Amino acid sequence: MHIGLVGLGKMGNNMRARLEKNGVEVTGYDTNPAVSDVATLADLVNALPAPRTVWIMVPAGKITDSVVNDLEGLLEKGDLIIDGGNSKFTDDFRHSEQLAGKGIDYMDAGVSGGVWGLENGYGLMVGGSQAQVERVMPVFDALRPEGPRDEGFVHVGEVGAGHYAKMVHNGIEYALMQAYAEGYELLDTRKDIIKDVTGTFKAWQRGTVVRSWLLDLLVRALEADPEFQNIEGYVQDSGEGRWTVEEGINNAVPLPTISASIFARFVSRQEDSPAMKAVAALRNQFGGHAVKAVD
Amino acid sequence: MHIGLVGLGKMGNNMRARLEKNGVEVTGYDTNPAVSDVATLADLVNALPAPRTVWIMVPAGKITDSVVNDLEGLLEKGDLIIDGGNSKFTDDFRHSEQLAGKGIDYMDAGVSGGVWGLENGYGLMVGGSQAQVERVMPVFDALRPEGPRDEGFVHVGEVGAGHYAKMVHNGIEYALMQAYAEGYELLDTRKDIIKDVTGTFKAWQRGTVVRSWLLDLLVRALEADPEFQNIEGYVQDSGEGRWTVEEGINNAVPLPTISASIFARFVSRQEDSPAMKAVAALRNQFGGHAVKAVD
Amino acid sequence: MHIGLVGLGKMGNNMRARLEKNGVEVTGYDTNPAVSDVATLADLVNALPAPRTVWIMVPAGKITDSVVNDLEGLLEKGDLIIDGGNSKFTDDFRHSEQLAGKGIDYMDAGVSGGVWGLENGYGLMVGGSQAQVERVMPVFDALRPEGPRDEGFVHVGEVGAGHYAKMVHNGIEYALMQAYAEGYELLDTRKDIIKDVTGTFKAWQRGTVVRSWLLDLLVRALEADPEFQNIEGYVQDSGEGRWTVEEGINNAVPLPTISASIFARFVSRQEDSPAMKAVAALRNQFGGHAVKAVD
Amino acid sequence: MHIGLVGLGKMGNNMRARLEKNGVEVTGYDTNPAVSDVATLADLVNALPAPRTVWIMVPAGKITDSVVNDLEGLLEKGDLIIDGGNSKFTDDFRHSEQLAGKGIDYMDAGVSGGVWGLENGYGLMVGGSQAQVERVMPVFDALRPEGPRDEGFVHVGEVGAGHYAKMVHNGIEYALMQAYAEGYELLDTRKDIIKDVTGTFKAWQRGTVVRSWLLDLLVRALEADPEFQNIEGYVQDSGEGRWTVEEGINNAVPLPTISASIFARFVSRQEDSPAMKAVAALRNQFGGHAVKAVD
Repeated sequence: MHIGLVGLGKMGNNMRARLEKNGVEVTGYDTNPAVSDVATLADLVNALPAPRTVWIMVPAGKITDSVVNDLEGLLEKGDLIIDGGNSKFTDDFRHSEQLAGKGIDYMDAGVSGGVWGLENGYGLMVGGSQAQVERVMPVFDALRPEGPRDEGFVHVGEVGAGHYAKMVHNGIEYALMQAYAEGYELLDTRKDIIKDVTGTFKAWQRGTVVRSWLLDLLVRALEADPEFQNIEGYVQDSGEGRWTVEEGINNAVPLPTISASIFARFVSRQEDSPAMKAVAALRNQFGGHAVKAVD
Repeated sequence: MHIGLVGLGKMGNNMRARLEKNGVEVTGYDTNPAVSDVATLADLVNALPAPRTVWIMVPAGKITDSVVNDLEGLLEKGDLIIDGGNSKFTDDFRHSEQLAGKGIDYMDAGVSGGVWGLENGYGLMVGGSQAQVERVMPVFDALRPEGPRDEGFVHVGEVGAGHYAKMVHNGIEYALMQAYAEGYELLDTRKDIIKDVTGTFKAWQRGTVVRSWLLDLLVRALEADPEFQNIEGYVQDSGEGRWTVEEGINNAVPLPTISASIFARFVSRQEDSPAMKAVAALRNQFGGHAVKAVD
Repeated sequence: MHIGLVGLGKMGNNMRARLEKNGVEVTGYDTNPAVSDVATLADLVNALPAPRTVWIMVPAGKITDSVVNDLEGLLEKGDLIIDGGNSKFTDDFRHSEQLAGKGIDYMDAGVSGGVWGLENGYGLMVGGSQAQVERVMPVFDALRPEGPRDEGFVHVGEVGAGHYAKMVHNGIEYALMQAYAEGYELLDTRKDIIKDVTGTFKAWQRGTVVRSWLLDLLVRALEADPEFQNIEGYVQDSGEGRWTVEEGINNAVPLPTISASIFARFVSRQEDSPAMKAVAALRNQFGGHAVKAVD
Repeated sequence: MHIGLVGLGKMGNNMRARLEKNGVEVTGYDTNPAVSDVATLADLVNALPAPRTVWIMVPAGKITDSVVNDLEGLLEKGDLIIDGGNSKFTDDFRHSEQLAGKGIDYMDAGVSGGVWGLENGYGLMVGGSQAQVERVMPVFDALRPEGPRDEGFVHVGEVGAGHYAKMVHNGIEYALMQAYAEGYELLDTRKDIIKDVTGTFKAWQRGTVVRSWLLDLLVRALEADPEFQNIEGYVQDSGEGRWTVEEGINNAVPLPTISASIFARFVSRQEDSPAMKAVAALRNQFGGHAVKAVD
């Protein structure tokens, strides 16, 4: 199998390496000529055997839109675009409809695994037609982890379903991280009782109910920087977490821990909280309680 | 009616003024001789007609315990102690039992109204026996706001019930404040749309569903310091909010907004969040996402 | 002043009554001929002096869209549409742009007060141009509560700002209601201590920090049906609360109590919770804990 | 090594089996003579070589208290009691002090692993003196999972530290379960998009960021009962989760996801929600919104 790969950043580059290691030929294109195999997107398309398969691995939103637009002009009926980025599932609906006019097929693939995917394989959630999923299965088999196919790959449904599943995956991920983090803070706060915080997390890696890959990573992080002395409690969030809450709201599904996880990230990035200024002002108003003045 | 009042701080002093204005004679004692009517607690007791009524208005916990202990030694069978501070209801159980040995009666009074109570009257929630409540009703009538008695005073139940009601009152108060504060932050964040944040809150004072005394105070605070430029988003909490959550937990009563309000205060006081350090570290571990390094 | 009013349901009908009581002439149109003053929307438009002012008071979304479309065909340059329903602020952007093509002006008005507005007046939050706001001020003055204008009316900003403010108002309202409700449940659960739950809420009406109009209504409801024996804990939600959370998410504003309030409503409407089935299944899996079987 | 084991229920019985398989001699006592090795607790004590080690594995609270009291009368200076149940850490402080009078040592062991511990080994968190931990290390080595000792065992600190760590472990566990459950509900609600909910969870088992043992169990449960048709969304909670929140509150540590998880369990057990009755009543009061009447 021979596919095109658009986007050779941190994720794309690792994925190319894993694909090639597992026997899939890859022609890569990136706007950075230093890492690109071809000079232009047209060259990439020309380098591929028909029906062509082009995997997009670029930032969601405008950049993905732009690549889809460009490929629409270059590909032919029967070709396939797979968006493996972190696009919103509604973008998939739009892209699929747009490309259908020219007879170009579309598939979305949620990809999990981060920087460890090169070594461990990537968990894959795919949306698209059964026929196309079967045709490109060698690509998925090359990317996914060792072991039974259905423990690292799923054909979730029609177009959009792959990114929908990835969105929920990331929403869950946010809450899992927050759960461990809350436990960490409580243990860290009671170092009068807990004499070995890192050792406690380390000991949870086998046999316990809370063992997980994220726990393993937390242990790794704590061993590298006990008490996180070099890390600020400042946490970005990406689209998927927000979209998960939006979908919960739209579908009347209560998501108390997932939303709490995102709100905690919002707060972590604030220099000062307008809301808490208001609460401080209110306490001062009714109780005469002192406020902490801005320096 | 003539009562003793122990504790002449911000609250106690105002309460004395309101009591006297409304015809209750007050002998006040405070460890600060500058404001005290008598030199010692014994002098206070001696100044009162039997059966004596002593209202305690000092910080909850050890200080209230200490005053109760001292009064136990000074008062006589048939006298009455009213704890009007912010004691935990379980302290009332303890104090009541302790004093019963000597035949001294005990009552707890939750007092709401803050610095405005002198002018507006204090909302009162009382726990104790029916007979004693009736005997000291002139005191409650002097303290409570104008209007029907049952709109500013309630005999909630036996000893402890007054402070229990006050505890819940404060738990609700926390969540009410947080609700307005969240709305404030959203309006303040969208000043591209909301051209008059203070004016919006001001306009909610009449006719709307959200009108309240806390809203009036928020308007007052915004008019004094638009955008709260001189106030840090740093908010203390006192025992009642915590005890409310504790009681929710103990009685399997879900308290999502009250607990969220308290957690927001905890976060507001942190220089940096250990939990969010852990989340940042985890994101770095699996995704290679940059962390914000401590300076 | 003489205006047209489209929609004579629960809200529209009360508003007409208040407008007429305060000297504003109203021609009303409703699809229900029994309450309509005119037979058609065209008749309504013809009945009004130019420049015409038509206040729309119909359900948000498709019905409001449809009325705006119809009025676009009937009104002339210089006329004004005011949407007083619970539309999303982004609908205002759309309607305003749509009507601008024909030179028809547009204004949005958030209206708070519910069934009490007829008697108490309506809290008004308005978005639109300064000139139009001034022109229709007699309408706002007729609708708003007695007292200073700026305590019941605000010109929040350009088109959309009025509904944005109303949206946040309702988000706050959700959390305020939830706050009292949580306190109620805790008091109700501890009736071993709290001998008079209704009386406790009643006593909070004067002097306390938590006094508010919603509290007054809660007392009213408790006096009508102590312990809410005839009411199921089943609560609908409307768009504004959801949009508030959506806006919080989009603008990185943490809204823990507002979101918790909405999630509580979602849960209240579930026959059974899929999430809690999953938790029960997990407990059974790792601990052998019994699950409660479906009948 | 030869130890006594008090309590041969679901957990104790499995632990005895694992201990014996791994070369630790066990004399077991249970109030159920059918499973007990000896007739009385005194017989158990007499069967052990000095210094004796008795592991208690009975329900926390009064039953554990009672066993400790009985053993206090039977054991001698230099003997050791290990409480492996789910006791609160403050009970450990009390038990340790109580036994110190007679020179009996005390240790607490948090044990995780549930019904899978027999096969997989138990994650162990231990509080006590270094000397005693070393003396009974063969017991811990027999119980803990295969692999490096520090990945399944930790000496957390002095007496109480083991149960403290286990308490936090369980608090985290609650939030982890809730996180997966929220994601499950969202996927399950959008079966129009997600054609294979079970398959999606199954595919997350390898390569993804959310892979964990709890995820494996969720897949197992879904495969046994897709859509959980036989399970009610009714979830018990045990002490550790509640104590975790209590400790968060006492130490000003925000625990939004852990508390949300517990509140979700509380709600899951309610026939009807008093809080939501109050919200429904309020909506009816101000907006005339219909309430759902109790049948």
